[in-house]
Amino acid sequence: MSAIDGLVQEFSRLPGVGRKTAQRLTYHLLKRPPEEARRLAEAIGRVVDEVKACSRCGNLSSEDPCEFCHNSRRDATALCVVEEASDIKAIEGSGRFRGLYHVLGGHLSPLDGIGPDELNMAGLMRRLEQDVRELIIATNPSVEGEATAAYIHRLASGLPELRVTRLARGLPVGGDLEYADGVTIAEAFSGRREM
Amino acid sequence: MSAIDGLVQEFSRLPGVGRKTAQRLTYHLLKRPPEEARRLAEAIGRVVDEVKACSRCGNLSSEDPCEFCHNSRRDATALCVVEEASDIKAIEGSGRFRGLYHVLGGHLSPLDGIGPDELNMAGLMRRLEQDVRELIIATNPSVEGEATAAYIHRLASGLPELRVTRLARGLPVGGDLEYADGVTIAEAFSGRREM
Repeated sequence: MSAIDGLVQEFSRLPGVGRKTAQRLTYHLLKRPPEEARRLAEAIGRVVDEVKACSRCGNLSSEDPCEFCHNSRRDATALCVVEEASDIKAIEGSGRFRGLYHVLGGHLSPLDGIGPDELNMAGLMRRLEQDVRELIIATNPSVEGEATAAYIHRLASGLPELRVTRLARGLPVGGDLEYADGVTIAEAFSGRREM
Repeated sequence: MSAIDGLVQEFSRLPGVGRKTAQRLTYHLLKRPPEEARRLAEAIGRVVDEVKACSRCGNLSSEDPCEFCHNSRRDATALCVVEEASDIKAIEGSGRFRGLYHVLGGHLSPLDGIGPDELNMAGLMRRLEQDVRELIIATNPSVEGEATAAYIHRLASGLPELRVTRLARGLPVGGDLEYADGVTIAEAFSGRREM
């Protein structure tokens, strides 16, 4: 296979990248100075070589423990459980949480053979038995995410001192009521607050 | 900068890849076996190291002359001029052309300082003076592409033996008349053919 077709094929393996996009990306790199493509190749290599799952929380990081577990200024009494390490970036972007994280590595999905043992649940329970006072469940607002949240809630109910919360569901800010789906509007009603 | 942020930044430089997509691609690579990311990095390196512009037609290829210029079964009397090497892939996909190509490397754009000298026009003229009998102008159906086509047409008018053609414009196959723009419909009318 030619070098060009080889790169088109590799790009096509990425999520959301079809053959046409893969071709556009390949020819884009060929039009730019070669250093730019080399920097991309090196950045990929560096990520593969350096980044590991944090042994404490499961976050993907070049350090172990990761930058959050390692940071003594984060509030260790608040633990936010997420499905994927990438969710942490989104939450940090909100600037509203200063506690620690716990990455499950997915959600419960019996049909795909993913039960509690396939997720980082045992690690979560061990951490909850330490000095955590609030567990914030931030799994996705999807069917599987809700099932996973319910499972964790049951697990945590054995710890009477622990406050267990779930991120609010409702209308996305900047969204349009007209285009919101019925389930979201129903959630927004049942979660409505005094003004 | 962390390895993850570094790769997110490099992915963000690609066309059509915003910050969110760059993050998704980065975490995707981290979830897959490391060999997959390494193959991508190697494919990028290989393209940068191997692929050069063909000294005859300007096509991007690992060989020089490229696979078309090199192939004696291609019809050397038909020359198809395109803006970019990536256009060749699209034309080859149609399976309707068996001649040779000539890559201009862009289109005329005086406001961006791109005149004939910035494009591979001199090389085109040299080739036209050889045994080419038909020149098919396949620049894009855009304002700049049309201006470039008109310029080439004038250049080629000094060669009375040469047939100069332009790819037809009209309704895209599989498209919907209702959603076609007025200019395209007008072109489809003026280019209509007997059934």
